[in-house]
Amino acid sequence: MTVPRLATALTGPLLDLERKFLLAQPEIEAWFRSQWLEHSPPFYGSVDLRNSGYKLAPVDMNLFPGGFNNLNPDFTPLCVQAVQSAIEKVCPEARRILLVPENHTRNPYYLQNVAALARILRLAGLNVRLGSLNPEITAPTTIEVNDGSTLTVEPLQRRSRRIVLDGFDPCVVLLNNDLSAGLPEILRDIDQALLPPLHAGWAVRRKTHHFAEYDGVANEFADLLGIDPWYINPYFGQVSQLDFQTREGEERLAAEVERILNKTGAKYRELGLDATPYVIVKADAGTYGMGIMSVKSPDDVIGLNRKQRNKMAVVKDGLEVSDVIVQEGVPTFETIEDAVAEPVVYMMDRFVVGGFYRVHTERGTDENLNAPGAYFKPLAFDTPLSTPDCDGSPDCAPNRFYAYGVVARLALLAASRELITTMPEMEPAALAV
Amino acid sequence: MTVPRLATALTGPLLDLERKFLLAQPEIEAWFRSQWLEHSPPFYGSVDLRNSGYKLAPVDMNLFPGGFNNLNPDFTPLCVQAVQSAIEKVCPEARRILLVPENHTRNPYYLQNVAALARILRLAGLNVRLGSLNPEITAPTTIEVNDGSTLTVEPLQRRSRRIVLDGFDPCVVLLNNDLSAGLPEILRDIDQALLPPLHAGWAVRRKTHHFAEYDGVANEFADLLGIDPWYINPYFGQVSQLDFQTREGEERLAAEVERILNKTGAKYRELGLDATPYVIVKADAGTYGMGIMSVKSPDDVIGLNRKQRNKMAVVKDGLEVSDVIVQEGVPTFETIEDAVAEPVVYMMDRFVVGGFYRVHTERGTDENLNAPGAYFKPLAFDTPLSTPDCDGSPDCAPNRFYAYGVVARLALLAASRELITTMPEMEPAALAV
Repeated sequence: MTVPRLATALTGPLLDLERKFLLAQPEIEAWFRSQWLEHSPPFYGSVDLRNSGYKLAPVDMNLFPGGFNNLNPDFTPLCVQAVQSAIEKVCPEARRILLVPENHTRNPYYLQNVAALARILRLAGLNVRLGSLNPEITAPTTIEVNDGSTLTVEPLQRRSRRIVLDGFDPCVVLLNNDLSAGLPEILRDIDQALLPPLHAGWAVRRKTHHFAEYDGVANEFADLLGIDPWYINPYFGQVSQLDFQTREGEERLAAEVERILNKTGAKYRELGLDATPYVIVKADAGTYGMGIMSVKSPDDVIGLNRKQRNKMAVVKDGLEVSDVIVQEGVPTFETIEDAVAEPVVYMMDRFVVGGFYRVHTERGTDENLNAPGAYFKPLAFDTPLSTPDCDGSPDCAPNRFYAYGVVARLALLAASRELITTMPEMEPAALAV
Repeated sequence: MTVPRLATALTGPLLDLERKFLLAQPEIEAWFRSQWLEHSPPFYGSVDLRNSGYKLAPVDMNLFPGGFNNLNPDFTPLCVQAVQSAIEKVCPEARRILLVPENHTRNPYYLQNVAALARILRLAGLNVRLGSLNPEITAPTTIEVNDGSTLTVEPLQRRSRRIVLDGFDPCVVLLNNDLSAGLPEILRDIDQALLPPLHAGWAVRRKTHHFAEYDGVANEFADLLGIDPWYINPYFGQVSQLDFQTREGEERLAAEVERILNKTGAKYRELGLDATPYVIVKADAGTYGMGIMSVKSPDDVIGLNRKQRNKMAVVKDGLEVSDVIVQEGVPTFETIEDAVAEPVVYMMDRFVVGGFYRVHTERGTDENLNAPGAYFKPLAFDTPLSTPDCDGSPDCAPNRFYAYGVVARLALLAASRELITTMPEMEPAALAV
């Protein structure tokens, strides 16, 4: 396997933090094992990490990961094994799985992701078919993937309390559609296992719920390691009932930005770090890097111009932004060929199965890299995240990747707790999973 | 990754059998999942397979696999993931594992295996130390592994109902010693998880018990696929109370050889196969390819000369042979550079984690390849066994390897049933696992 050309990323000295993770590996793994017995992990997830050299933290946790095509194909067997574990718990007799992709079937990268994910599921011994929520899909539709293969997407049908396709009654319905557009009636109260559950959809999920759970996870883990939880946890706050178009709530937003900037600055001074605090303002619901601002001063959110307001007001699928998370910005330390690189770690069940760097040549180290469109270049991790080289030098790639895998799993654990605490009482079907 | 230079092995057309496996993959995987819920798999195991072109069958199932050094290092993450699954079930809070190797610490290949296995356990987040049953090890002893690393072996100590080393109280005791020399007192009735259980040791285990369970597994699996179970199952019989030195029981052995030869010949005729039946006579207990004969006629076992009798009378660690298994010989179809190749498949928990070809340049296609010493050359499988290429040509390596993984898991399932049915009532500690 070739070594990825990572400049600062992997040649710098290993963080003190990463060294602590390596030394405590048996304690960390035992702790995760006991956690997973209490909290069932989501079927899958991806975590955006930021590594600032002094801090390694998750900044986003996606429960409908869309980049399986970006993973190193050498790690496919890890995905297959993880899927076998996941399916065994949910529905061991499963033979048929229905994969529900996003509606935007014209994005070639997303289609490659769906093809990669379907392949993993097939390799795990499942019959896979694709069912669409898109009302325009009224008959089986074959779509070309730009890798030469094709996908056939079929209209979802409801039959009593089951979701079916023509001649296909799946045991499991797997969502790769993040439900930004709302929780579809057709998926409510079904008897089949629905993964992730409906309330994981962005129509109801909130980033602030996730990071509130992450606070608890990070504190427990920091206790285990005897470290300040701040090293793995960005500060955050929430501002609700905003209206970007009418500027309703602007002052409250500026106040929260100031609060997080001040907390961060105080921490920097406490630790003697020479860095300028900034915060990221993001829609509390939603994804795709829309509705995001990087700000260094409270004034930056006062009197936004029309373009800025439009950008913040609406995210994917027309989901309107009224609540935001104000999150401590964690500058990224890693660059690849002078471009900023942000690690994204993929997990299935409780296993880290791969990842890639989101490399952005036109952005600074303090900006969000999950920009709209496909502006980033993915660079698959070259070595697995589960095999630190205990005898190797502490700053080699497998060791850094082990640290990534640990922090990503902390976010996954927070997600599993989040899905329990946010579980609506009126959704017994979703609870089944 | 380079492609292994397999001559007949992987360039021949895929067997009708292998094609059936591929088509039924979802049914096969669902069946395995439900089986593993009822029958907990052993911690690990390796299976010797024979592929005759018309038949693919296990001929030996080892519960103390000794060739982890022969696996493709690219698959180490699969082993790590499988160990994490296995430990989670046995003892999720485990941080410390005691590995008990064979006593013959002078075999460089075996030491490499121990080093490879210890590395896998460490990568899974366990503190690993080695404890020896060898009475000559009375203090911590450092042994050079010929790959440049070292291993430290320490004397086992019993403290009340626990096995410990100095300053090390393990949660799990993992045997890589097959207990041919007897079930050690020190391991009896301990409170820790002992894997595999004591009665898996060759001092009490019998190949015929295993293959009796395999009969059941093969029949159920053949029903699932609608095939004749003979395609995956060699005939066998047992002859007991033999004494090779005094020739006691020789006639009974010849009669059993004749019975299996006749059954095999009848099957060959029924299926129109142009092949000459032969049988393998093996010690019913024990391993390391000792106490093995390949015979084509009942007369071959009458009036053995002194050398032949000596070879059959005693296997590893002085274990005397009084019982044998008479097993239908399955000629191997696979060759590598004109040498005979026998696939060996490695499993941890319920997962296939790798394998290699045992390549023997001096033996025929109808001989046992697990010869004493290190006469074979291992050739690591190059692709994982869990990723058949559904869209690829049916005779490509991943597809053949999928079939190997299926048959190996059938043997693993038989072993898990065998360990339940042979569980002694007076060994509650062993039952705990």
